[in-house]
Amino acid sequence: MNLPPIPPIDSAAQAAARARQDTLTKPPGSLGRLEELSIQLAGITGQPRPSLARKAVVVMAADHGVAAEGVSAYPSEVTPQMVLNFLRGGAAINVLARQAGARVVIVDMGVAADIPVGASRDLPLQIRKVARGTQNMAHGPAMTRAQAESAINEGIDVAHSEIAKGLDLIATGDMGIGNTTPSAAIAAAITGQPAARVTGRGTGVDDAGLARKVAIIERALAVNTPDPKDALDVLSKVGGFEIAGLAGVIIGAAGKRAPVVIDGFISGAAALIAVGLAPEVKPYLIAAHQSVEIGHRVMLEHLGLRPLLDFDLRLGEGTGAALAFHLVEAAARLLDEMATFAEAGVSEKG
Amino acid sequence: MNLPPIPPIDSAAQAAARARQDTLTKPPGSLGRLEELSIQLAGITGQPRPSLARKAVVVMAADHGVAAEGVSAYPSEVTPQMVLNFLRGGAAINVLARQAGARVVIVDMGVAADIPVGASRDLPLQIRKVARGTQNMAHGPAMTRAQAESAINEGIDVAHSEIAKGLDLIATGDMGIGNTTPSAAIAAAITGQPAARVTGRGTGVDDAGLARKVAIIERALAVNTPDPKDALDVLSKVGGFEIAGLAGVIIGAAGKRAPVVIDGFISGAAALIAVGLAPEVKPYLIAAHQSVEIGHRVMLEHLGLRPLLDFDLRLGEGTGAALAFHLVEAAARLLDEMATFAEAGVSEKG
Repeated sequence: MNLPPIPPIDSAAQAAARARQDTLTKPPGSLGRLEELSIQLAGITGQPRPSLARKAVVVMAADHGVAAEGVSAYPSEVTPQMVLNFLRGGAAINVLARQAGARVVIVDMGVAADIPVGASRDLPLQIRKVARGTQNMAHGPAMTRAQAESAINEGIDVAHSEIAKGLDLIATGDMGIGNTTPSAAIAAAITGQPAARVTGRGTGVDDAGLARKVAIIERALAVNTPDPKDALDVLSKVGGFEIAGLAGVIIGAAGKRAPVVIDGFISGAAALIAVGLAPEVKPYLIAAHQSVEIGHRVMLEHLGLRPLLDFDLRLGEGTGAALAFHLVEAAARLLDEMATFAEAGVSEKG
Repeated sequence: MNLPPIPPIDSAAQAAARARQDTLTKPPGSLGRLEELSIQLAGITGQPRPSLARKAVVVMAADHGVAAEGVSAYPSEVTPQMVLNFLRGGAAINVLARQAGARVVIVDMGVAADIPVGASRDLPLQIRKVARGTQNMAHGPAMTRAQAESAINEGIDVAHSEIAKGLDLIATGDMGIGNTTPSAAIAAAITGQPAARVTGRGTGVDDAGLARKVAIIERALAVNTPDPKDALDVLSKVGGFEIAGLAGVIIGAAGKRAPVVIDGFISGAAALIAVGLAPEVKPYLIAAHQSVEIGHRVMLEHLGLRPLLDFDLRLGEGTGAALAFHLVEAAARLLDEMATFAEAGVSEKG
């Protein structure tokens, strides 16, 4: 498919940031990962002292045909119910985004139900429904290749329009009952790990539910035989509309030099797809956290990303990413706002 | 010595917070450490839904006689220079506290020089100098027992007066060239580990400097024979004035039901002393981060604390703690602000 170009990292801005770090009033390297992150942010944005004041979390929602197999602890009706909760500001992602000073962009990429209109709500809903849920991947492809392309293009458009409104830092978030199942299937297909090594309990299935989930993923992979070298094939056969949309958000943001904070397991699946489609997005990614889902570690290793937080989170919605915004912004603010040895009249290392 | 009483954790508030977590619109437990933290905060404050809007980092500075042994990569003149940098708002802790919406309380507990007055500054300095630096612990006690008690009492007073001004969350920070040496000595004395296992490179000594530092700590322990069962003995023989003051801050804050975010290695030494003097402070502590200093892990294990962040920090000043404020406040805000299943009309687990 036709994707927007991704510029390379700006090595001059990166070098300027690295040089400035060594003039700031602290022992060189003593701010650890915050220094590394500041240099990455300079390279991404092309700014030697980037400002990350304007932030947004894009939360994409969709339903999954495979939920009919009983792979989730919750019924599919929870997907639209939680979207309404997002719109009213009552979900965890709303709380964390408010605290971070970030806006929440809520997108219906393929919820099976219509989100009721007229209900009281604080936030707008973008309706970019590709279909009313995917097909059941245990029996055939989750979506057509054309649907996958369409969903990715919607995601790119979401990123571009948010950046046009003014945006320095973007995060990915998800909602979709059953969506740890396609995410695990994507992880297995792309990394080559067996399903059992990348499949976890999602929102909380029991041992029998976990065994059923692994078996369903194995069946979906056997029925569909996704080609690991063709990310669009993997996405269309065992993916989901919110995963496709988030892959588009990642590609769209990287194309405009915006750093992308990746949330947990579902966002990780979207990142695998995005990197499969456009490997040049990789240096634009920041992994927010290490999820409880066992397959998440496999994903992050495959992507070569070290997560910022390890908080035993397994909620999704972009919650880990919103929590990590503060850390990412701290890196940029330290680089920009700290006094140098010369400015402060502090003696350097003897 | 005479310490203010520390109230027990409020188990009713803790139970109320735990019960509320299970009604919020998320799979139970899916917010991981944020849920645990919210329950701890409820128990500390006695509030089922605590608010942590008012925050402060107490940064205590002092000099160390043992610096004469060449244990630091920087000269002692950097201690007052960095205090001036704090007062002018140019240090890392100023940047991170501004971002966190926290005030910075700067206290001279025993800087060897007088901080120049009349220079332009944004913040006030509290002068609570116990002496102009400690004695060289390689030859005898760093301070008298009376000085140690006095420094602790000053720290308690700092905590109480900040709380009287309005404060929900307090953090500890330090500045003092040479202060990883007494901190490592305290860790060795209290945990019983050999000096080599708890001594790191501080601001960045080379291999020869590290070997010298270990030998000096071994000599200080041999010369002074601190009694591990008597925290005041350990503190006076191999401690420092900022470490003593921070131990007082911890005790003073816990006595008033304020959660205390502990920064890195020097704050960890202060926490070892505080817990030695008053074991009931332990549940009031939140470990901000895992420092690069190798002895920090030993300290946290001894204290039974799991750090929130692992960012390869080794700056001190309270930087890790200020960075962690956002995470601690997130826990409280989620508990307070999220909608319940009933409020949001979301179906519970099937």
